[in-house]
Amino acid sequence: MEFASDNTSGAAPQIMQALMRANEGFAPAYGREQAMERVRALVRETFEAPRAEVFLVANGTTANALSIATFCPPWGAIFCHEQAHVQVDECGAPEFFVSGGKMVPVPGAHGKIDPDDLARAIATVPQGDVHSVQRGMVTLTNATEAGTVYSPDEIAALCEVARGFCLPVHMDGARLANALVATGASPADMTWRAGIDILSLGATKNGCLAVDAVVLFDPEKAWELELRRKRAGHLFSKHRFLSAQIEAYLTDDLWLDLARAANDRAVALEGVLAALPGARIVHPRQANMVFASLPRATHRRAMSAGAHYYLWPHWASLEGPSDEAVTARFVCSWNTNDADIVALERVMRGQG
Amino acid sequence: MEFASDNTSGAAPQIMQALMRANEGFAPAYGREQAMERVRALVRETFEAPRAEVFLVANGTTANALSIATFCPPWGAIFCHEQAHVQVDECGAPEFFVSGGKMVPVPGAHGKIDPDDLARAIATVPQGDVHSVQRGMVTLTNATEAGTVYSPDEIAALCEVARGFCLPVHMDGARLANALVATGASPADMTWRAGIDILSLGATKNGCLAVDAVVLFDPEKAWELELRRKRAGHLFSKHRFLSAQIEAYLTDDLWLDLARAANDRAVALEGVLAALPGARIVHPRQANMVFASLPRATHRRAMSAGAHYYLWPHWASLEGPSDEAVTARFVCSWNTNDADIVALERVMRGQG
Amino acid sequence: MEFASDNTSGAAPQIMQALMRANEGFAPAYGREQAMERVRALVRETFEAPRAEVFLVANGTTANALSIATFCPPWGAIFCHEQAHVQVDECGAPEFFVSGGKMVPVPGAHGKIDPDDLARAIATVPQGDVHSVQRGMVTLTNATEAGTVYSPDEIAALCEVARGFCLPVHMDGARLANALVATGASPADMTWRAGIDILSLGATKNGCLAVDAVVLFDPEKAWELELRRKRAGHLFSKHRFLSAQIEAYLTDDLWLDLARAANDRAVALEGVLAALPGARIVHPRQANMVFASLPRATHRRAMSAGAHYYLWPHWASLEGPSDEAVTARFVCSWNTNDADIVALERVMRGQG
Amino acid sequence: MEFASDNTSGAAPQIMQALMRANEGFAPAYGREQAMERVRALVRETFEAPRAEVFLVANGTTANALSIATFCPPWGAIFCHEQAHVQVDECGAPEFFVSGGKMVPVPGAHGKIDPDDLARAIATVPQGDVHSVQRGMVTLTNATEAGTVYSPDEIAALCEVARGFCLPVHMDGARLANALVATGASPADMTWRAGIDILSLGATKNGCLAVDAVVLFDPEKAWELELRRKRAGHLFSKHRFLSAQIEAYLTDDLWLDLARAANDRAVALEGVLAALPGARIVHPRQANMVFASLPRATHRRAMSAGAHYYLWPHWASLEGPSDEAVTARFVCSWNTNDADIVALERVMRGQG
Repeated sequence: MEFASDNTSGAAPQIMQALMRANEGFAPAYGREQAMERVRALVRETFEAPRAEVFLVANGTTANALSIATFCPPWGAIFCHEQAHVQVDECGAPEFFVSGGKMVPVPGAHGKIDPDDLARAIATVPQGDVHSVQRGMVTLTNATEAGTVYSPDEIAALCEVARGFCLPVHMDGARLANALVATGASPADMTWRAGIDILSLGATKNGCLAVDAVVLFDPEKAWELELRRKRAGHLFSKHRFLSAQIEAYLTDDLWLDLARAANDRAVALEGVLAALPGARIVHPRQANMVFASLPRATHRRAMSAGAHYYLWPHWASLEGPSDEAVTARFVCSWNTNDADIVALERVMRGQG
Repeated sequence: MEFASDNTSGAAPQIMQALMRANEGFAPAYGREQAMERVRALVRETFEAPRAEVFLVANGTTANALSIATFCPPWGAIFCHEQAHVQVDECGAPEFFVSGGKMVPVPGAHGKIDPDDLARAIATVPQGDVHSVQRGMVTLTNATEAGTVYSPDEIAALCEVARGFCLPVHMDGARLANALVATGASPADMTWRAGIDILSLGATKNGCLAVDAVVLFDPEKAWELELRRKRAGHLFSKHRFLSAQIEAYLTDDLWLDLARAANDRAVALEGVLAALPGARIVHPRQANMVFASLPRATHRRAMSAGAHYYLWPHWASLEGPSDEAVTARFVCSWNTNDADIVALERVMRGQG
Repeated sequence: MEFASDNTSGAAPQIMQALMRANEGFAPAYGREQAMERVRALVRETFEAPRAEVFLVANGTTANALSIATFCPPWGAIFCHEQAHVQVDECGAPEFFVSGGKMVPVPGAHGKIDPDDLARAIATVPQGDVHSVQRGMVTLTNATEAGTVYSPDEIAALCEVARGFCLPVHMDGARLANALVATGASPADMTWRAGIDILSLGATKNGCLAVDAVVLFDPEKAWELELRRKRAGHLFSKHRFLSAQIEAYLTDDLWLDLARAANDRAVALEGVLAALPGARIVHPRQANMVFASLPRATHRRAMSAGAHYYLWPHWASLEGPSDEAVTARFVCSWNTNDADIVALERVMRGQG
Repeated sequence: MEFASDNTSGAAPQIMQALMRANEGFAPAYGREQAMERVRALVRETFEAPRAEVFLVANGTTANALSIATFCPPWGAIFCHEQAHVQVDECGAPEFFVSGGKMVPVPGAHGKIDPDDLARAIATVPQGDVHSVQRGMVTLTNATEAGTVYSPDEIAALCEVARGFCLPVHMDGARLANALVATGASPADMTWRAGIDILSLGATKNGCLAVDAVVLFDPEKAWELELRRKRAGHLFSKHRFLSAQIEAYLTDDLWLDLARAANDRAVALEGVLAALPGARIVHPRQANMVFASLPRATHRRAMSAGAHYYLWPHWASLEGPSDEAVTARFVCSWNTNDADIVALERVMRGQG
């Protein structure tokens, strides 16, 4: 009963096979292998962005921190949702990479930022006042930490607010594939056409071993980004093992297929959880995560039976009265089992 | 009609005289002048803290940022009031000196933090979770940005919360003298006896030219602080001009006399403002600042007549209907004139 | 004819198989997988260091920069060989991770530092003088950038110098296995018993895909190192793919077998190069690299025939008279072919 | 007998008087006082640079570090003389302000860099190689740490080298006035006309209390520099005390008169030292410093008699045989006494 995270799953067979193939023979190091040329072409085609530059790194924290540092000066304010990964789950990586910077958390229901709230938050940082940090950039997460999804129109509305303040916009797309599947939007519509300047394109959580891509839609800052990546220890010598993963990931829509599988499992899981006595779905289920409020007794039964998932926020207290509600997060992956969902329902209903 | 800030005032005559005296002859540089020995002794005596180490810098931003960087690691969360100078008025100096760090703003009425709110804020940063920044330190401001004052007991209660989480506590005492005069508390009771580990002892705003002191109550980190000061460009070569100011400042209670004068003028000003038609005092007046809500028309009259003070927050809009209320901050200094107060009343009442 | 670097080779079959096995099923993320327990035990056993802590990262630059940042304050001087990877090949990663720091390059024949030169270099940084950076730490590379090897006694002599100045010592062991095979020394004798505090244990260059380990012999700084790793984006979510590599790498002496194969090929290559007309071996060949001075004409023939290796330093000019000597670096890997050596000889002799 | 440094002297009477005048009444804070307008005009006129921007800070370390950080990215190499203040006397301030950076020390006789050596040093940092730090900027010191002086032509030749590599050039002019007096060059010829982009204009050592100016000849980076100054704690609230000093300093050539007095005293001192038995002048005396090699016995006599000066480098050993030579640095200030020179001669000759 594995619902702890999409990073407890392994890699998809196609990814492992690509890795095996990439291992044959010798190859130039540091991204000069031929596969990286193919990856670049593939990303440009996938995103309909012929000038985009692509940088492979090992994970989403790095993709986010590098993206932000490339656009935001050390004295910049970074506007993000108050539950964004960059704000609560990266041990200050953005501040480290930026050499300063101040995250300005914006509240918002169901993990999403409302354009008016974003405008208000930006306006609280006075413009051109040397005593204050300066407005730096905006970062949006899609799919969000609450498992909800922005449509391209919603992204565009937020980018328009940012543009009104002359701010660049980053998208944390650790679960971008899940958002694309959920909305049916094209990669281009969801990103640069809506106003996104730089994207963390997630792959690790969605069936790869360890690779995410930074997609820089305007290539002007490419060399700076390359230096920042190297200096942070994120330029891999045997880079072919990164490019092999991304190449397979984007080929024949594998990334969307994997995300669709995860989203579909989440639909099934949502049905199960919603029907439990005393349970309630907390955020609209739109991608591969389900947040449910459960009686603590239900939760305890699942834990005793060895189910894996987190209370949310994950430092929530485990102690308390049995009839009190707790909120739990359940994440589905490309290879989540139907059997695990059935088993979870059984133990939660005390039929285990 | 000068009420813009306590830093628009000049230096007190005693300070200027001390500066002239200090200029005679040659003196060792970089704090090895004899006057620094006397300053050290004076601070220790004033604070009843025989082991305290003292570091002179040119202003409060530096004193704060050095203090915080000495106690908080780059991945630390720094808990402060949401309107604290370190959070809103230092262009990210704490984050720069810390090489990262994340300010966690705590709300609180009238510029003060409630111990329960502090505990709650600290608890939101999960302990020992590598994905999160770590609980780093607490910083309190006394007198506060809202012109209110913590009593020693209130400081002690907040330090106790911090201590419960094993966190060190810094006090931004840019207006400490005003707080001491307001409460009648001793410097020791207001600081280390209440649990403060390191203090920014303000002097610039209160009648000096450019000097504040960092008082480190536990000398263990003295050498690190000295290196940080030098590395940040804050070790003065002709250091005697800093020590001369602080020596005069602390001699014969000059600092308290200056603060008392400022606080007293604020009492008078409060009376005037409170009595204006449509006006309302916004925060309890306890030190040398008065925050008043005024009809915009009243404010416009004062501005037209050349009065100096800021709307608050200072990026508040100047435009709007005449009968709408605006909030303004008025600051009194050691040398604020009665005549200015009389003149302000007159123009605000339209009698100018 | 592939001699460009040990990172143009792929991963050994045992490593790939371990990766495939690790991919089965679900596993806790972020290093909490069971394999990491086994890795920890294996490293401790291999190094006879039961208290050592182990941190897996993706490459040597990261291992080095994290190690240095954990021991050296931002105002510290880092003493290293003038050709050390940390000094010339990491785009300032140590300075980034340290948030400052100053590399102090120490000259030395054949890539090695002489204890007297080290002592002299350390002594040039004045102790306890606030105007200077402070003596921070020493970092040694074994095998060196010049393909030479320190014996345990030589390492111990250098560590003794460092200890005399109370400085911790890091070893960049990107090619540690090659050095161990070359000297026959035990891992413990080459590291902590000789005085090394923290080790970058290389694996990527020697038959892995992308993994190096930081071995911290004194566990006191373990938590700090863990936070630094996370904050730099180097804590992998699907960490099992790192632990799988290292587990296989250290099992049944695979790492030594791979290094031995590389060193042996270098012996053969050295013989070939030394016998070329006009050629000369530049540094004693002790590990898996050969540095040879060649007539430029010889070099041009090899390049035309598609041989892969670098002139050294790698920004050396490619232009110049045919009879002028150039210095070239040839690196052997675990899977370097005899056939490639034969082919190289042929083309260099103009028999291709 | 005070020859320890030009920062053991006090401030000139004209500076103190300006300070007293500046103290009258209220004035806007943070550089918005009217005097700063006058300072800006004065600097522009003095340097014949109508677009130059001027930033006042408290000392030379800050002026240098801010200048460098404004032009050099975190991954930049900073080329400087191996004895430059930025390299050996600022506790890593440039690296701190730059958030990284790597000082590349260039050797050179008598504190000066030869254009060919500069070109060679720059060329050792490979261009466009992501593994290396990148060529960042050049910083020159005039007068130098060895008391020698570059002519405008020499500065121009070095700037031409830098320009050939597309690198900006900073001048550390902590003793610029001494260099101008020594050469008779105009401020413009010595700086921007020769190719200097940004200047640390020293004043503290030459008769002020605590103020240096950053002069930015190309105003494009002015706002960034302003933010960096604030963020580093170097924007003074009672800024009028800085502008008052610089205004007086540059008025009626006071700065040149003070420097001329210091240089003249150094001429006299040089004569005395050169004539001592066993003594030798080590660097050509061109500004206000004399470096002399003396028998240790001579040095000991002076120390016993209470003379103040430093052996150089200042961590040189005080112990050793009496007939061994030591090198000492003697610095003259605007107010160095003839009587002190006479007294020094007497004690050194054993006539005290």
